[in-house]
Amino acid sequence: MNEPRSGIITLLTDFGLSDPFVGIMKGVILARFRGATVIDLCHGIPAQSVVDAAFWLERSYAWFAPGTVHVAVVDPGVGSARQLLAVRAHGHVFLAPDNGLLAASLTGPGAELRAVDASRLGLGTPSATFHGRDVFAPIAADLASGALAFADVGAPAQALPCLLGAPRLEAGAVLGAVVTVDRFGNLITNLERATLEAAGARRVSIGGRDVALRRTYADAAPGELVALINAFDVLELAVRDGSAERQLGLGRGAPVSAPVAGHVARV
Amino acid sequence: MNEPRSGIITLLTDFGLSDPFVGIMKGVILARFRGATVIDLCHGIPAQSVVDAAFWLERSYAWFAPGTVHVAVVDPGVGSARQLLAVRAHGHVFLAPDNGLLAASLTGPGAELRAVDASRLGLGTPSATFHGRDVFAPIAADLASGALAFADVGAPAQALPCLLGAPRLEAGAVLGAVVTVDRFGNLITNLERATLEAAGARRVSIGGRDVALRRTYADAAPGELVALINAFDVLELAVRDGSAERQLGLGRGAPVSAPVAGHVARV
Amino acid sequence: MNEPRSGIITLLTDFGLSDPFVGIMKGVILARFRGATVIDLCHGIPAQSVVDAAFWLERSYAWFAPGTVHVAVVDPGVGSARQLLAVRAHGHVFLAPDNGLLAASLTGPGAELRAVDASRLGLGTPSATFHGRDVFAPIAADLASGALAFADVGAPAQALPCLLGAPRLEAGAVLGAVVTVDRFGNLITNLERATLEAAGARRVSIGGRDVALRRTYADAAPGELVALINAFDVLELAVRDGSAERQLGLGRGAPVSAPVAGHVARV
Repeated sequence: MNEPRSGIITLLTDFGLSDPFVGIMKGVILARFRGATVIDLCHGIPAQSVVDAAFWLERSYAWFAPGTVHVAVVDPGVGSARQLLAVRAHGHVFLAPDNGLLAASLTGPGAELRAVDASRLGLGTPSATFHGRDVFAPIAADLASGALAFADVGAPAQALPCLLGAPRLEAGAVLGAVVTVDRFGNLITNLERATLEAAGARRVSIGGRDVALRRTYADAAPGELVALINAFDVLELAVRDGSAERQLGLGRGAPVSAPVAGHVARV
Repeated sequence: MNEPRSGIITLLTDFGLSDPFVGIMKGVILARFRGATVIDLCHGIPAQSVVDAAFWLERSYAWFAPGTVHVAVVDPGVGSARQLLAVRAHGHVFLAPDNGLLAASLTGPGAELRAVDASRLGLGTPSATFHGRDVFAPIAADLASGALAFADVGAPAQALPCLLGAPRLEAGAVLGAVVTVDRFGNLITNLERATLEAAGARRVSIGGRDVALRRTYADAAPGELVALINAFDVLELAVRDGSAERQLGLGRGAPVSAPVAGHVARV
Repeated sequence: MNEPRSGIITLLTDFGLSDPFVGIMKGVILARFRGATVIDLCHGIPAQSVVDAAFWLERSYAWFAPGTVHVAVVDPGVGSARQLLAVRAHGHVFLAPDNGLLAASLTGPGAELRAVDASRLGLGTPSATFHGRDVFAPIAADLASGALAFADVGAPAQALPCLLGAPRLEAGAVLGAVVTVDRFGNLITNLERATLEAAGARRVSIGGRDVALRRTYADAAPGELVALINAFDVLELAVRDGSAERQLGLGRGAPVSAPVAGHVARV
């Protein structure tokens, strides 16, 4: 079977950049596949926050060339018996622990899932605490180089449900939640453009505030709270020249709702 | 016309590294120009601080090979009607919003300025909030690869004045300001070596302190405030094994002066 | 003499990523050696902490391909007369200030040490404050590309003793110390697996706490303090789903001990 390869490997972790963990993963990758281009998708995922990682991986991968290998290591269960999944979906390959990190869109119909059989791949005994270096990096390198065919990674598998919850329709409103907060204090939710458009929503409700949907930050006055569909096609709460996180005093998990046309939202 | 190309693209933003914004820009660049080498110049510019970006871009670009494309995205006006500038100067290419980010030395005589005409370039409708991904990245990739000639980027244009103020000569002293503060708490000013040498300055005045100019940190005692011409050829206030920012309680915008020989400085 | 070269250059500094210092070093490297692959080993070393750098460099380099050039710039003495060392050991090349940054395993028998003679290499006069850009980067580029042979870097030299202290055997216990703390608050020590195994240690003592050695984080209950041999083969104190640094209130330099079998440890 034909497997297009871009030679690109992305890394998404909660390792941060204050230690050499990410640098060492790159060393291992390049030692096995000198031609790899390794891109830091992000290492600032809050420690062990599978939800943040799930959101960003799903929203980011498609901006890379098809045939890219995406490695996600947010792995509170490292060293335990949790599976390591390899997934092929939408022309990309994903490596992640089986802990709810992979969005439903990556594991649903059309996706091919396999449980990585590290022992079969001749990787030796991994350390108990750094599978990013000992398992993820070499397998990513070999998949990206073509030294390892996807089908040889391990047996077919299933994934645990994604921890990134889906919005619910209830009492005339679509109910969602803040799933991540970016560097600027913007509150990013799991309410998608399509969901809001289907509901005919023109306003949203969060933290007792009722906010009109605008097109862009520049449509708001400085200091004003604004709701918009962001560049990742989900609802975002922002404060122009400020921080919605601070102004609202809200963060991850905070509920947000949009009234379905003709109803009144309750949160 | 012959346009030397290094294949290198630098990125300077206020995006930080806690989110995947920078990683996604690299994905877009590599999807259009697989041979690009993308270098993070810096993503730690304080949010929306055009002055910090202006200073560092001007002081950094010449360390890269000629024919490098430098992308600067510190863009409080994203989504509004502000122009996006492409500039060719000193053998390098610059992409930046027209908001005062480009130093006078990059837009003055000899520079070629064009207003990016994104609609003409077949990029589709950009998102309202992430032009780094939707406009800057693809244009940088195409300029760096040669797929897009500089002259085809848009019509000739002019730039707004740079927000990085120039020092003033006044009452026997050269007056400048702190323009950025580095990780070590060093206060970095816009007073250049040539200006200070022309003035015959051997001391500077800041925050009511009178400080002698030294050659290097090692010439000071631990904890001592020292003034020196730094590796970027501007005046810097530093504390050996400490932080000038903390010791002086000063930051961006703080005035600094150097007496012209034979005069007394007043700040 | 045959010198294998990987074309890879790693950078380990205390520069952080909030300023463009690292980006500029990469610009200089690529301008001299376009084919270099530059990897950030880590730039989050605490300012001027030679011990952290010494630990991580020694524990990281072997994960890279042989023939890699490792540049370490944690250099409180920049601008003073301290030597700059080039070392060839274990098939890798190291560039670092002679300030105790290089571990004994990198400068002992079999290693080749030279004092970099920057003036002889035609680099011009370096700035007083940024040798990373003006000396380390160009020499690393030339060593990695082969433009400069290792033997031509300068005269044979000796290194100052490493600041990373070795454990001591005393009163029936092996005594070591915390040498670095990672992003997760794990306390990482200089007690190696081999030392602990030779002592028959099954428990360690730190901050008045007596802790059993386990295999992995997952063997502990959430919030529980655990001692394990980490992925870098040294003793680490961790708290599952928490921070050992916070729970113990300890950091760099804190003493840790392991009883030699049959004795009682005293710290």
